[in-house]
Amino acid sequence: MKFRLIGLFIATMMALPPTAAAQIADSYREVAGRIIAAAQADSAAFDRLAELTDKFGHRLSGSQSLEDAIDWVLTQMTADGLDNVHGEAVIVPHWVRGKESARLLSPRTQQLPMLGLGRSVGTPFWGIKAEVLVVGSFDELSARSAEAAGKIILYNAPFTSYGETVQYRWRGAVEGAKHGAVAVLVRSVTPHSLNTPHTGAMSPYPDDGAKIPAAAVTVEDAMLMQRMADRGETLVVRLKMGAKMLPDASSRNVVAEITGSELPDEVVVMGGHIDSWDVGQGAMDDAGGCVAAWEALILLKKLGLRPRRTVRVVLWTNEENGLMGGRTYAETHEGTLDKHVLAIESDGGVFKPEGFGFTGSDAARAMIEDIAALLVPIEAGTILSEGGGADIGPIMRAGVPGMSLSVNREKYFWYHHSDADTIDKLDPHELNLCIATLAVMAYVVADMPETLPRIQPEEEEL
Amino acid sequence: MKFRLIGLFIATMMALPPTAAAQIADSYREVAGRIIAAAQADSAAFDRLAELTDKFGHRLSGSQSLEDAIDWVLTQMTADGLDNVHGEAVIVPHWVRGKESARLLSPRTQQLPMLGLGRSVGTPFWGIKAEVLVVGSFDELSARSAEAAGKIILYNAPFTSYGETVQYRWRGAVEGAKHGAVAVLVRSVTPHSLNTPHTGAMSPYPDDGAKIPAAAVTVEDAMLMQRMADRGETLVVRLKMGAKMLPDASSRNVVAEITGSELPDEVVVMGGHIDSWDVGQGAMDDAGGCVAAWEALILLKKLGLRPRRTVRVVLWTNEENGLMGGRTYAETHEGTLDKHVLAIESDGGVFKPEGFGFTGSDAARAMIEDIAALLVPIEAGTILSEGGGADIGPIMRAGVPGMSLSVNREKYFWYHHSDADTIDKLDPHELNLCIATLAVMAYVVADMPETLPRIQPEEEEL
Repeated sequence: MKFRLIGLFIATMMALPPTAAAQIADSYREVAGRIIAAAQADSAAFDRLAELTDKFGHRLSGSQSLEDAIDWVLTQMTADGLDNVHGEAVIVPHWVRGKESARLLSPRTQQLPMLGLGRSVGTPFWGIKAEVLVVGSFDELSARSAEAAGKIILYNAPFTSYGETVQYRWRGAVEGAKHGAVAVLVRSVTPHSLNTPHTGAMSPYPDDGAKIPAAAVTVEDAMLMQRMADRGETLVVRLKMGAKMLPDASSRNVVAEITGSELPDEVVVMGGHIDSWDVGQGAMDDAGGCVAAWEALILLKKLGLRPRRTVRVVLWTNEENGLMGGRTYAETHEGTLDKHVLAIESDGGVFKPEGFGFTGSDAARAMIEDIAALLVPIEAGTILSEGGGADIGPIMRAGVPGMSLSVNREKYFWYHHSDADTIDKLDPHELNLCIATLAVMAYVVADMPETLPRIQPEEEEL
Repeated sequence: MKFRLIGLFIATMMALPPTAAAQIADSYREVAGRIIAAAQADSAAFDRLAELTDKFGHRLSGSQSLEDAIDWVLTQMTADGLDNVHGEAVIVPHWVRGKESARLLSPRTQQLPMLGLGRSVGTPFWGIKAEVLVVGSFDELSARSAEAAGKIILYNAPFTSYGETVQYRWRGAVEGAKHGAVAVLVRSVTPHSLNTPHTGAMSPYPDDGAKIPAAAVTVEDAMLMQRMADRGETLVVRLKMGAKMLPDASSRNVVAEITGSELPDEVVVMGGHIDSWDVGQGAMDDAGGCVAAWEALILLKKLGLRPRRTVRVVLWTNEENGLMGGRTYAETHEGTLDKHVLAIESDGGVFKPEGFGFTGSDAARAMIEDIAALLVPIEAGTILSEGGGADIGPIMRAGVPGMSLSVNREKYFWYHHSDADTIDKLDPHELNLCIATLAVMAYVVADMPETLPRIQPEEEEL
């Protein structure tokens, strides 16, 4: 208790040195202005994003298109004259969708646009034909458990928030199997649909349960089947999925840097993930985040800004279905994680930036909030109470302060994990603002005299 | 010239009898209030619309689902106790889509979601594989005519208004053939896309030109191919379409009435079209318009309101690809068209109603505007300068005043002619307001002492 109070005292002292803190922003106001202006000078970043997404399309782990995209990025980064450009080997799971379809057979026939969920097993070649039990929640499934055996469960849970609604995609198959279901369908996790199925990862199957296939259907068809069930009609669906897990494949995290001038071992790492689902172009999830971080580095280089510490861009692989890029990065760099000053991830679409989410010490937060004042001119100065990302999760758990680029999220889930995740939904100006936001934050944290303070052991106990 | 001035004088006199006009609204204020209140009492109309769309799905001319839906409606209307319920024979074209697909083969492979255009011929079984010429307009096609021979033309015209942009869907194949194209692709006519293709009718082929197939691709893919072409890349697409025209089929216009108490031969006709494209559910295009008119009739019956003149609901067939329902109605009823007081069509989706468009004499307009005051309490009192509809076009050309239900159009073309035209986009309360709006207008025009005045021959000369 005594230690804790001392910790709190220290943290408070560190968090609130108004003169010192204000000095950070004041010292960097001029350079931040130059970065922000230069970021908006042209649409080169958007053109590069378009080239990446148009040239390679989607990039699922294990696919040739992902590895081709990585090769192309490495070549481009080298041509850009960035430091220490290289790939770092990552072994990734290799799930393939195969041919798939779903068809309503009763009370009338209708093709059901669908996408199998990542990790799902397939069906027999002739499919699984079964009655459908429509439920709105896991609670309803439990209450109607006696009806579930031998059925295809349809989870028709309306979108509330991603975090709440995604549980049916994640746990639906595992829970359904417990009640004897032979397959599950999940209403796509989105607030808006034009009969668009959205895929995504499902939880690994437990060793001791039945492995049943799982697919997403559209919001429209989930509602249709709900109405039919509510009228007392018997629903029958045939689900065919060729999905399977192939042997693990080789992929790479992509790394490029501007090496620090004084403290090159201290690193601000930022990036997005270069893999995507096997639909659309993976433009906002997450080619946009990759290009934003990459172009932020180019911007600093163009402006001749070499900070005291190293700024490292990492384009992680396999975020979507395995997280092996982030995990392997944490392992590969285990010995230097104490020198990782800050990790920033952009994985929410490169829409109009609003600031960052931040998770770290109170002292660091005060400094970050001070720096964020430099982003107020482009309305990107808000620092939210929590930040992070799937790829930087492993190094954050090792103590690295974490940030997520925070953007306008109004439409992100309209497109997320669907064929509609294409570059035409993005805006060159908004992308440029994301680049400016990342570049200012990364540069100042990498260059400021004091190292961003980590959470102290005493503080953690609080 | 003299006659014209007299006509203008008469028309002006008829249009502006403020006392008489105000008397219409005053006389019907109480009953209009009852209609509006009763329309909002429950969601029975929406439930019926859901049953129609869920039970039969889409309803293309010549399909069994269309005829099954017509049978069901006739049975229901009879059970509703409406007068003179019957079908009227209509011979309709029978176009079928068949199996179809489009695939980008170069500069990389990608499946292109597509929908063949109604009336299009198909391709050979093995498809048409050709280079793609991307143009933004007919003018650009003419300017690049030398490049067009043997190519697939892609019209990538961004949506401005439906009327302007739809010309590429309508005339694209015919214009393309003139320049030697072997097929055409059209960017879907919509302001919003989640990689959603939108079908629709194309112009009949001229007898003297090559008949080349035509299909709509998504906005996203049209933009993708534009970007690729702008980079100087060679695009190759394989288009496969099994589309063909079968022998004409039998369908029906659906008719139901409340027979007038004093002037049963004078008719206010209103309705929508029961057929749809072979995608989605045709919920807003135009099951909603059908059910709105039908339920308006039921509402009058429930309230014991039998007007002096007959109110006739017609659910026209074959609006989408032939207009034979509207044409045949005009022929079948040719002898009584002079007794058709007013024709009202609802074919813009049953979103929040705003009033009507009206085409007719100035004198009639003044009366309609007076009646519309009764709809101000539900914000549906606006009378636009023009009205009409594809199905009532033939009888309007014979002199019948025409109206279109005018609704909020913000999202109509998001769903139009696509798999996203499903009932979940509609709202029970808004549907009820549409019913109230139709019922008040139809009832008052059918019941008011004076017959809605037609355009006088002199007036037409103006």
